[in-house]
Amino acid sequence: MTFEQNMLDYKTTIEEALKNIVFLNCSSNSFHRKLIDSMNYSIHAGGKRLRPMLLLEANRILGGDNEKAIPFACAIELIHTYSLIHDDLPAMDDDDLRRGKPTNHTVYGEAIAILAGDALLNLAYEIMLEAIEDRRGIDASRILAESSGSRGMVGGQSVDVLTEGISVEKDILEYIHMNKTSKLIQAALKMGAALAGGSEEEMSAFSGFGFHLGMAFQIKDDLLDIEGNEAMLGKPIGSDATADKNTFPKIVGIEASKAALDEHTRIALSEIEKIGGDTVFLKTLASRLLSRNS
Amino acid sequence: MTFEQNMLDYKTTIEEALKNIVFLNCSSNSFHRKLIDSMNYSIHAGGKRLRPMLLLEANRILGGDNEKAIPFACAIELIHTYSLIHDDLPAMDDDDLRRGKPTNHTVYGEAIAILAGDALLNLAYEIMLEAIEDRRGIDASRILAESSGSRGMVGGQSVDVLTEGISVEKDILEYIHMNKTSKLIQAALKMGAALAGGSEEEMSAFSGFGFHLGMAFQIKDDLLDIEGNEAMLGKPIGSDATADKNTFPKIVGIEASKAALDEHTRIALSEIEKIGGDTVFLKTLASRLLSRNS
Repeated sequence: MTFEQNMLDYKTTIEEALKNIVFLNCSSNSFHRKLIDSMNYSIHAGGKRLRPMLLLEANRILGGDNEKAIPFACAIELIHTYSLIHDDLPAMDDDDLRRGKPTNHTVYGEAIAILAGDALLNLAYEIMLEAIEDRRGIDASRILAESSGSRGMVGGQSVDVLTEGISVEKDILEYIHMNKTSKLIQAALKMGAALAGGSEEEMSAFSGFGFHLGMAFQIKDDLLDIEGNEAMLGKPIGSDATADKNTFPKIVGIEASKAALDEHTRIALSEIEKIGGDTVFLKTLASRLLSRNS
Repeated sequence: MTFEQNMLDYKTTIEEALKNIVFLNCSSNSFHRKLIDSMNYSIHAGGKRLRPMLLLEANRILGGDNEKAIPFACAIELIHTYSLIHDDLPAMDDDDLRRGKPTNHTVYGEAIAILAGDALLNLAYEIMLEAIEDRRGIDASRILAESSGSRGMVGGQSVDVLTEGISVEKDILEYIHMNKTSKLIQAALKMGAALAGGSEEEMSAFSGFGFHLGMAFQIKDDLLDIEGNEAMLGKPIGSDATADKNTFPKIVGIEASKAALDEHTRIALSEIEKIGGDTVFLKTLASRLLSRNS
């Protein structure tokens, strides 16, 4: 199977599973139809499905059961999706476009967008709790919870919005990137490994890989915002600068950002080497993500 | 022990536990200090602690372990707290006061209020996942998840905001009250019973009690908004009417609302009779809640 075919297979699996989960919440004549429509709108707005893909691949590498991992893969995508809806709100980043489409609140209004985010966050835990069979499922759910809350993603978002328009030191920027972006990517890999019953060494290697992949991914994003192509990104380039966001290029300059990207990439790839098994897909995925131009 | 002492004991237990949980997330020099402050502000804004109290009491009646139930009691209070923060937002009910104090977003700004709500919702699941020891803990967590999301509380909130200013039929109003208010009160009792390993009959009696108590509680709230005393409620009376909210008195009239309150109260109390054990506290609590004047 080619890399492209492999990736497409994962994407199809995840999107089918997401359709089925949300369908359970949905009845055509229900009073809360608009809420469900709003949830579905953002779930099916064309994401890369990167986090669930990483989760399923980590689980596969360590010999885990793919079917049993799918609800957890959906859960992390739902958490990611809710965070984008709330991030785009007028009180937050105030974005009108996301992946080239109108943002949730532009279509459904602010109140429903807030509630759709809340419902997706809740749904993530609901489907994991339904799927938990043993300690491995509990461990995977806990990893996601710890990475998503005030000590993880939400903590990172809070510092991101509070420092808008204020030039920050590099350690604060690293805190933002680590928490806002890297922790959820790292969680995906750790969850997959936990579901497969990975050893302490394996968990640590996936965790290290995930952390550095996440940091590299976010620095790449910052660089693309300056250098990328507007049409390919689906959002206006320079939008971070316009919003006066703190980014790697802004704080340390373009050359130092590229060096940091290379360094995180190098460490990420060296962490993969500690993992036994077939890591070809994971390595290819990492290198494509970090050399992408959109 | 008097009823008042019993209630105060529960309140102290819950508030101590809440302090300890949030303290874990807190470090005085952390970057995300403002987020933690905002979470703490609403957690300690003087709630009745009704839902965790009902959970602990249902668990006690069926002989469950109180210590083990405490994290789940905290979780339902965190879910309730997050929902109030998001409900008060300018895009939702746009309230400046809650329990006589400025609402979260008035103090911390909209962005942080949205994120504090998200973090509290996430934290609720985090502490339950940490506390789960067996199937009973999973069952209790699932009850909360099912009651809080799009098929529960958030679903009710979505219809509530969408029907503001539109006069609705009684069935839609009942849908709103059932989902927005009753489901979480019902969940508290079902969770307590589940944690104690309650039988199917016991679960059903607690569920029936909780549902009707919740409906009665919300109808009482609607009536108090018209008849209550502003100073005692801590918010302006008539605020529902000002916001053009759909309430029982508005849709069916004051007399029919009082009749519905009586009927739900009657059924709630008859459901308690099906539960063996010492239900004196639960009955007293229900009758106080439904005859309160603030």
